[in-house]
Amino acid sequence: MKPNLFEALPAQSSDESFQDLLKVPGLRIERIVSHGHASPPGFWYEQDWDEWVLVLRGRAQLQIERQDALVTLQPGDHCWLPAGCRHRVVSTAPGEPTLWLAVHHTR
Amino acid sequence: MKPNLFEALPAQSSDESFQDLLKVPGLRIERIVSHGHASPPGFWYEQDWDEWVLVLRGRAQLQIERQDALVTLQPGDHCWLPAGCRHRVVSTAPGEPTLWLAVHHTR
Repeated sequence: MKPNLFEALPAQSSDESFQDLLKVPGLRIERIVSHGHASPPGFWYEQDWDEWVLVLRGRAQLQIERQDALVTLQPGDHCWLPAGCRHRVVSTAPGEPTLWLAVHHTR
Repeated sequence: MKPNLFEALPAQSSDESFQDLLKVPGLRIERIVSHGHASPPGFWYEQDWDEWVLVLRGRAQLQIERQDALVTLQPGDHCWLPAGCRHRVVSTAPGEPTLWLAVHHTR
């Protein structure tokens, strides 16, 4: 059995945590734990693979290039970021862990 | 925004529920809600694609061919079922919804 998704959450004082739950050709499933972390000003993720993200705890706001409104993700909310879709994390909840599941997919 | 994963859970009396959250070439992400459902006796899933399953609520037991022990999945537990891995659902929790996230991946 692989590590439980909800266990061993890193402490508040930690760096943002990234842990691969699965990695096979074309597919990587990752647990991310943020503690108020956000993308640096002016930084954009731009990936040549697709990403589907789901927030399971906490709260996050994403900015997607050429979209006026921010995307707010609360537990159970998910967002599809196809390859090449420039995006950044505007904020994650302060004072509690934000737990993400990210599914990275290469076509 | 796509429907929240934790909302609009079907009622206890319902059939097992399957809902695609995402479907693109090579990748399908599905929400499954079981209410004590299990695979029929002697039935085995045998798929020509990979599947990664995560239980988020409830409880499930999987049987995997050629493995002696059953795999028990509680919230946060996940299991990798590569293509061709014959498996069946032995049980899901009675009296409460078992919420699964299934990532189906074609190589």
